[in-house]
Amino acid sequence: MAKSEGGSDGPVVIVGGGIGGLASALSLARVGQEVLVLEKAPEFAEIGAGLQLAPNATRVLESLGLLEKIKSLGVLPNKLVIRAALTDTPLTYLEIGEDFLRRYETPYVVMHRNDLLSTILQACQEEPSIELCPGKEIIEVDNTDGGIVATCSDGSSYRGKALIGADGLWSTVRKKLVDDSPICSGYVAYRGAVPIEMATVHAPLDEVVAWIGPGMHYVQYPLRSGKLYNQVAVFRSDQYLEGKEDWGNPEELDLKLSAACDHIKAASKLLGKDHRWPMYDRDPIDRWTEGNITLLGDAAHPMLQYLAQGACQAIEDAYVIGEVFKAPHDSVHEALVKYENIRRPHASRIQTTARTWGDIWHIDGLGMMLRDELFRQRDPDDHTHIEWIYGKH
Amino acid sequence: MAKSEGGSDGPVVIVGGGIGGLASALSLARVGQEVLVLEKAPEFAEIGAGLQLAPNATRVLESLGLLEKIKSLGVLPNKLVIRAALTDTPLTYLEIGEDFLRRYETPYVVMHRNDLLSTILQACQEEPSIELCPGKEIIEVDNTDGGIVATCSDGSSYRGKALIGADGLWSTVRKKLVDDSPICSGYVAYRGAVPIEMATVHAPLDEVVAWIGPGMHYVQYPLRSGKLYNQVAVFRSDQYLEGKEDWGNPEELDLKLSAACDHIKAASKLLGKDHRWPMYDRDPIDRWTEGNITLLGDAAHPMLQYLAQGACQAIEDAYVIGEVFKAPHDSVHEALVKYENIRRPHASRIQTTARTWGDIWHIDGLGMMLRDELFRQRDPDDHTHIEWIYGKH
Repeated sequence: MAKSEGGSDGPVVIVGGGIGGLASALSLARVGQEVLVLEKAPEFAEIGAGLQLAPNATRVLESLGLLEKIKSLGVLPNKLVIRAALTDTPLTYLEIGEDFLRRYETPYVVMHRNDLLSTILQACQEEPSIELCPGKEIIEVDNTDGGIVATCSDGSSYRGKALIGADGLWSTVRKKLVDDSPICSGYVAYRGAVPIEMATVHAPLDEVVAWIGPGMHYVQYPLRSGKLYNQVAVFRSDQYLEGKEDWGNPEELDLKLSAACDHIKAASKLLGKDHRWPMYDRDPIDRWTEGNITLLGDAAHPMLQYLAQGACQAIEDAYVIGEVFKAPHDSVHEALVKYENIRRPHASRIQTTARTWGDIWHIDGLGMMLRDELFRQRDPDDHTHIEWIYGKH
Repeated sequence: MAKSEGGSDGPVVIVGGGIGGLASALSLARVGQEVLVLEKAPEFAEIGAGLQLAPNATRVLESLGLLEKIKSLGVLPNKLVIRAALTDTPLTYLEIGEDFLRRYETPYVVMHRNDLLSTILQACQEEPSIELCPGKEIIEVDNTDGGIVATCSDGSSYRGKALIGADGLWSTVRKKLVDDSPICSGYVAYRGAVPIEMATVHAPLDEVVAWIGPGMHYVQYPLRSGKLYNQVAVFRSDQYLEGKEDWGNPEELDLKLSAACDHIKAASKLLGKDHRWPMYDRDPIDRWTEGNITLLGDAAHPMLQYLAQGACQAIEDAYVIGEVFKAPHDSVHEALVKYENIRRPHASRIQTTARTWGDIWHIDGLGMMLRDELFRQRDPDDHTHIEWIYGKH
């Protein structure tokens, strides 16, 4: 396929073989497209630990035929619970068990990132129309007459009819469209999963629990059919605000957690502290598409993690990119613009809502008091605030 | 009575002939006490405009036989309404009409301060055991052997069995007990009533409405059987924070109101701007009583106006001071301590709650968003937050 001279005959070139890139490859292959995936890393793998798949993502995974495997590798919790980080007081919860499944038709699943990626990767490997090329770092992408060309750091170049930049937060493809940079929130995350036998301090095993507090939160839930237990600690670094280089280090983590309730203090003894994840996003942008090049997933709409929608939105992108290529279209460009018009307003709203939701989680003082009262008064069966994210749209 | 040489035979001397002082005089006279009221001003009068009498105050006024007159001079609204000052959006309300009356037995009344004072004053004048002495400025109070002595700036002095400092925010008597000062909140009020015919921009006439917003609020309600219309504008002065002398002036008022909704901007054209009321309170204190001297009303528990409980709490004090003198007691001191023990914890809680309530009214940003959502979700029949104030206790 690399020999294609452009035009409508070449493959769709996907830059980036993460969750969004591979899901898009699969989605496109299923509608009869030839796909080439160029991944910078020497192999396809995800770092990090757990992720959450809300019904808007499991709906897509079901349409791709992956849901049963996903369910067997993940965990289907019954409740999303929010508790106060300082006092361990329960604040509110969302039932995500049987009633939720009746409402949204596909389940809420939590799983290991790599389990999800492996599942999608395996499905891609079974598709003859998908070519997977790891070890290919893109340095330049261009529109050509009727097609695109992608140039790699090893001198190789690839032509195709469309290029999808699915190359994440630090996207190279995005530079083609907009001159912006990731925005650091000053928050840092520590996360990791341990064998369930080691997780002596845990929430009920059918719950995803977020303890929220001033400038910090803590999350726990099980993974991998319940064999692993996932933990995440996130906090706003005072050292970052002070302009220090070595901000958000494990010492600052321990200091922040020392103000939390006993449950968090005890649980955090098992938290991996060897990798530090500064939290970035970017502002929503006015366009994702130029010619036959478009953006997808974190390359298009990197978001803070507070709605647990990063992977979900990339998976929604993948579904829509397949749909627009399946539908009749006069040109590749037209199909990509249609994809953007469906996805950009929604994903942009998720980006900005995620910021606000984080601010709500981390508010202090009187605002915290009002938030807690609002959460306590909330009807757990009220879906107003999530229907637009989880429901069909 | 001024001739009394102290001991249990002399009068109860009340310093201050405002609402709390005169209500206490009446309450004490009704239980058989001789009372002497020393008022600094040359006559008994209240400044300001409207005040709100919740059931905890009208209950006392009924027991003093004043409620029918109060009702005829005031207005009995049907709703306490809270709206957003920036947008005029309704946020929540409390029904204070028929259902409320069934619940609390005595009504919610709004009236002119001076109408209330005149009513109590007239009742005092009809009591032979009350001596009213205006033009008497106290400069010193002391416990004596078994009694008290009060010395005035004109050289006169008065002896009695007890002294009640009802001399307001800037109380002289309070200095005897505690070395503190009024705390300026940096907020200032402009208020006044106009003939109803002039009030072209008003809320429904059966409503008390507070528009709340960032660092400001605006209140409207009718007075004097509906013949007057009362308005209050309150704002946090940036000039105060900047340390300026002439802070919270009418120019700053206009600037603040320029950010408000059209209703407030239009209504405020009629707001009196010739008197500026800086808003003060004090911290709750550990004791009100020393020997046979105690404090009452604003002298004991000056509070910010956000719960509209300043006059109400003074009136509650007046009721209890009568009750403890009516009940058998071994000494005047014992009766005063009993009064303090009943009233101090409750009034202190009102003082601190009023501050928080003001902070809630004036919060900005995300906290405002959370507050608005909380208010909108509130059940108007929920009395949780006011039962402890309005109910029998």
